[in-house]
Amino acid sequence: MKIRVYYEDVDIGGVVYHAKYLHYCERARSELFFSRGKSPVWEGYHFVVSRIDARYHAPARFGELLEVKSSVKKLTPVRVVMDQRVEREGETLFEMEIELVCIKENRPAKIPDYFLEVLR
Amino acid sequence: MKIRVYYEDVDIGGVVYHAKYLHYCERARSELFFSRGKSPVWEGYHFVVSRIDARYHAPARFGELLEVKSSVKKLTPVRVVMDQRVEREGETLFEMEIELVCIKENRPAKIPDYFLEVLR
Amino acid sequence: MKIRVYYEDVDIGGVVYHAKYLHYCERARSELFFSRGKSPVWEGYHFVVSRIDARYHAPARFGELLEVKSSVKKLTPVRVVMDQRVEREGETLFEMEIELVCIKENRPAKIPDYFLEVLR
Amino acid sequence: MKIRVYYEDVDIGGVVYHAKYLHYCERARSELFFSRGKSPVWEGYHFVVSRIDARYHAPARFGELLEVKSSVKKLTPVRVVMDQRVEREGETLFEMEIELVCIKENRPAKIPDYFLEVLR
Repeated sequence: MKIRVYYEDVDIGGVVYHAKYLHYCERARSELFFSRGKSPVWEGYHFVVSRIDARYHAPARFGELLEVKSSVKKLTPVRVVMDQRVEREGETLFEMEIELVCIKENRPAKIPDYFLEVLR
Repeated sequence: MKIRVYYEDVDIGGVVYHAKYLHYCERARSELFFSRGKSPVWEGYHFVVSRIDARYHAPARFGELLEVKSSVKKLTPVRVVMDQRVEREGETLFEMEIELVCIKENRPAKIPDYFLEVLR
Repeated sequence: MKIRVYYEDVDIGGVVYHAKYLHYCERARSELFFSRGKSPVWEGYHFVVSRIDARYHAPARFGELLEVKSSVKKLTPVRVVMDQRVEREGETLFEMEIELVCIKENRPAKIPDYFLEVLR
Repeated sequence: MKIRVYYEDVDIGGVVYHAKYLHYCERARSELFFSRGKSPVWEGYHFVVSRIDARYHAPARFGELLEVKSSVKKLTPVRVVMDQRVEREGETLFEMEIELVCIKENRPAKIPDYFLEVLR
């Protein structure tokens, strides 16, 4: 998934605001579903973040075209662990391991097949 | 209502991103309700924006402390027109006239007394 | 320019936060330059917003694919007035007239040819 | 530092968007400096994030008043490690360990006394 760095993304130093990488990665996770004609919110089921371990290697700048790469690392009945990285022309600028919990009615819920078809 | 300009608010030029003034004004409108122990979302009623006429006079910068001033200009059964301005030490940096429509279940609805007590 | 509505864009009502349309339109203005291999920030020259007159017609929702259409309405030596609209399958959800001023070193400056080639 | 949850902060589920906690924590770090009449950007020196390890315990909701607590965990000549947590009435909703690197002219730099007086 390609993402352009716009005005709204950079801060006073001309580099991407640190929290924006989480936005980029969330867009990429949602797009995994959208690109298959599905939605990450389905019949009350959705994912919430429970853990993020992130490393920042180099800054992205205004106007650059970045790429987000995502892979599922671990899948349990209720949780998904993913590796996501933001690259610029093959160079990793940011990488994180993120753990998500499937939720329905504010409680952890077994990930439905509708989601599993995308995550597997 | 006082608002500090943080990293997330400024763009590449070191000045506040233009759309952020709308965020600041929305916080101030919500705070009108919160400061009276109420909420701008009540029993399904809430406001949506139908029109904004905004003028930008001077930029705000990182670290500055701004003030948002809000006043109700016109009140009809379903709509509110407000004047809002963002000031820095008495100087107006941004001003807008905003029209809001009261909504319930995706349809315009008569503004309930619960909201009117704040807006009058 | 196509824009997907992500988690970060919607608010409590499940519809796009009103200020986000300004973000979308800014991305589209920047992309006018990027798509021609140029940048909207060039040798110290860039644009700042001086006026926005916006109308909200209908809400966009999570997951929808929107389109931003932009056209230059008026061009003076220092200013540009543009019409921008956000559509969903041909239906206009949001439209605005925006006036931008070309700036260099914090002062209004004659729009350089580098920008004019894009705006004309 | 107290932070109110506004419209812009919550997503489709009515809870605070996960990346927003990083925004809240950044505001609190900046406010450490502002509250002492200083700025986190000084003579070209500033901090960039190199690592974040975050845990999400419970969601915050629209209108709630949160508190961000920050403490310096480790201080080296060039780096700071901080613990930050977001609480609601004493309950920890979010906590993270964040590592920041002092930067000048895009390179790691010894943290100046101007910053150390705040961090110690």
